[in-house]
Amino acid sequence: MNLFPALADPALTSMNLLNEIAERHPAAISFAAGRPTEEHFCYDDLTRYLDAYRTYLLQDKGYTDAQVNRELMQYGRTQGVINDLVARNLLVDEGITASPESIVVTVGCQEAMFLVLRALRATPSDVVLAVAPTYVGVVGAARLLDMPVLPVRSGPSGVDLDDLVTQLRSARAAGLRPRALYLIPEFANPSGVSLDLETRHRLLSLAASEDFLLLEDNPYGLFQRGFTTRPPTLKALDSSSRVIYLGSFAKTAVPGARVGYVVADQPVGTGLLSFELAKLKSMLTVNTSPIAQAVVGGKLLEHGCSLVSANVREAAIYRRNMTLLLNGLATRFPSATWTVPSGGFFVVLSVDFHVDDALLAHSASRHGVLWTPMHHFYGGAGGHNQLRLSCSSVTPAQIPEGLDRLAALVSDVRRAA
Amino acid sequence: MNLFPALADPALTSMNLLNEIAERHPAAISFAAGRPTEEHFCYDDLTRYLDAYRTYLLQDKGYTDAQVNRELMQYGRTQGVINDLVARNLLVDEGITASPESIVVTVGCQEAMFLVLRALRATPSDVVLAVAPTYVGVVGAARLLDMPVLPVRSGPSGVDLDDLVTQLRSARAAGLRPRALYLIPEFANPSGVSLDLETRHRLLSLAASEDFLLLEDNPYGLFQRGFTTRPPTLKALDSSSRVIYLGSFAKTAVPGARVGYVVADQPVGTGLLSFELAKLKSMLTVNTSPIAQAVVGGKLLEHGCSLVSANVREAAIYRRNMTLLLNGLATRFPSATWTVPSGGFFVVLSVDFHVDDALLAHSASRHGVLWTPMHHFYGGAGGHNQLRLSCSSVTPAQIPEGLDRLAALVSDVRRAA
Repeated sequence: MNLFPALADPALTSMNLLNEIAERHPAAISFAAGRPTEEHFCYDDLTRYLDAYRTYLLQDKGYTDAQVNRELMQYGRTQGVINDLVARNLLVDEGITASPESIVVTVGCQEAMFLVLRALRATPSDVVLAVAPTYVGVVGAARLLDMPVLPVRSGPSGVDLDDLVTQLRSARAAGLRPRALYLIPEFANPSGVSLDLETRHRLLSLAASEDFLLLEDNPYGLFQRGFTTRPPTLKALDSSSRVIYLGSFAKTAVPGARVGYVVADQPVGTGLLSFELAKLKSMLTVNTSPIAQAVVGGKLLEHGCSLVSANVREAAIYRRNMTLLLNGLATRFPSATWTVPSGGFFVVLSVDFHVDDALLAHSASRHGVLWTPMHHFYGGAGGHNQLRLSCSSVTPAQIPEGLDRLAALVSDVRRAA
Repeated sequence: MNLFPALADPALTSMNLLNEIAERHPAAISFAAGRPTEEHFCYDDLTRYLDAYRTYLLQDKGYTDAQVNRELMQYGRTQGVINDLVARNLLVDEGITASPESIVVTVGCQEAMFLVLRALRATPSDVVLAVAPTYVGVVGAARLLDMPVLPVRSGPSGVDLDDLVTQLRSARAAGLRPRALYLIPEFANPSGVSLDLETRHRLLSLAASEDFLLLEDNPYGLFQRGFTTRPPTLKALDSSSRVIYLGSFAKTAVPGARVGYVVADQPVGTGLLSFELAKLKSMLTVNTSPIAQAVVGGKLLEHGCSLVSANVREAAIYRRNMTLLLNGLATRFPSATWTVPSGGFFVVLSVDFHVDDALLAHSASRHGVLWTPMHHFYGGAGGHNQLRLSCSSVTPAQIPEGLDRLAALVSDVRRAA
């Protein structure tokens, strides 16, 4: 059957390939999965969150039982039903002032990315830039729209501003219109790098002077290792609506709710960009399940709308795991180098041999350890001697054992060389 | 801001416009909304459904508590987690034999439509046909892909097969490749028309001889007025994988779950079309909320996977309402004509004056009654003296009162003429 050619693109096939290797080796220790810890998952939380949201509707909003039932069980507002709670969360945790109507609640952050790219892809010359190495989800969403993604070097600062200017100009010289730069300013996936405050300010200035938007994705921002003050998000520093903020609750609330959001307060006509995104959403998923939104809403309500407070235990797990991982690397891999991120889930290990999917398959079947070849985050154009290690969904006992297995893999490779 | 031009297309703006009129007049009686009845909505059902699904995982599937928590709360399989229950439902209620792996569970039927159209839009010459008047959701999904939708006349049989052949040939002569015909064979939205058995067989033959797919959407099939045997779906008659079946649980389970599905058992390479749709979904919404799927799964389990049995009360409501509506029309509109559907939610009223959005706004503000101008279902190319009346979300008391208001509107129009 003649199908959409991008179905054969690595951006769409690589996740499948990695998942298949993982599924074939369920007993392997996984440094591959970027999913959140399951240590505190508890079924009773779900119904308690639903009840908390129901109580809020009844008591704070003065709903009748029939109105509660309608809100949870009927088709709902396309823009979302928990927008006020999301806005409170942004204020409490991030110092971001966002009006509820500037927010669209989406089916995970992935739908938010697709909606934004769909809106910005006005003509075939519209392209998006992304800091490379890049989260594969944004490349995949762009592929669904045949929208080119132009890489911008990350470098040690998280975004190489000189390269950004070079890429903008060469894209324009080629007749393209760069609409936005996608990046994860805090503990990026996969690099683990964060932007310092000066780089954030310079990036915002550049976005204004060069007239492009910033697509700020922030799934890991809450999980810093140290106890220093978290730097402000780009959106918190954004005084001229240059930033579209992509929000995820997958790592901070309940992944299974599949609820994310986008803050799009850019003026469009007499309204906001969020209204246009909602129009697109009405033809994509109609609305985000209000039951799923209620689960997230209930968790927010239980914690005064602070996900920092809701994630005290989880943040401690990630800190503990990252420290175990970094210490374990130091004792086992004297000739390799790795990043030392100040938070998040990911460490990048650089080695002196070729790292590809075949090596991963060998690692899984012979050594029982999974990780992610970094070339997937470069669209095949880099990362061939790097691998990404995630510390988010392993136990403390698995980390040294997994690293021993990784060391055995490295010995294998050396023997074969 | 320079945005995707289709944002100004009637397919994307009309739903917003109709919703805005409805929101401005919350006290109006609504024959506009095609949403299901709320008469039996009950909050406790939600947690009971979740519990039923949990018990099923523990007892029937032998899951541990940790596995249950992971299935409900963690990221899940992109293809879905309740595929086996959906397959059982299709067998029990529709006599459709579908393997769980041929099914992708989606964020409502709307996402299913988008995924299918995205997969079939392989080149700029790929187009989709749709029986006109057409459900606006499929036109909107196609607009997101810049994919033309070519209308095929409905006629009294639900699809005019002669016109279908004409449209196929003229599309091909124009260098286009018609990939599929979208239709609702049972109680169509908005026409209310159903295909008889002979037309179903002839349509399937034509799909094979002319080499196109049938996109069968079946949201209303369970709600027939009479007590005769329901005709088989196209998918139940499909012996050569010509039919992609689009399933909705919005009218038959819980709209607020936003769970639908697609059966795509067409062979592609060594796999199935469903696998390709899942690849696309992984870059659109990643997976459908397993919590939302568990709500639907629990309802299915409570009723032996039969939605016919789960909807005995709701089907009676729609039968009662449709009869009240049809009888009420007969006593109030001697000079109008209307369709007499054998089931579903919708009656089309044909009048001898111009029906547009301005008339709807007048109807809402002056007479307190809402309905849908039929031109929205023809992309503006027809239906200018028709309006759609939905009987699904009105009470028995509202129907005569709403029709009195509609009669007053008609008197207004006559006086002004």
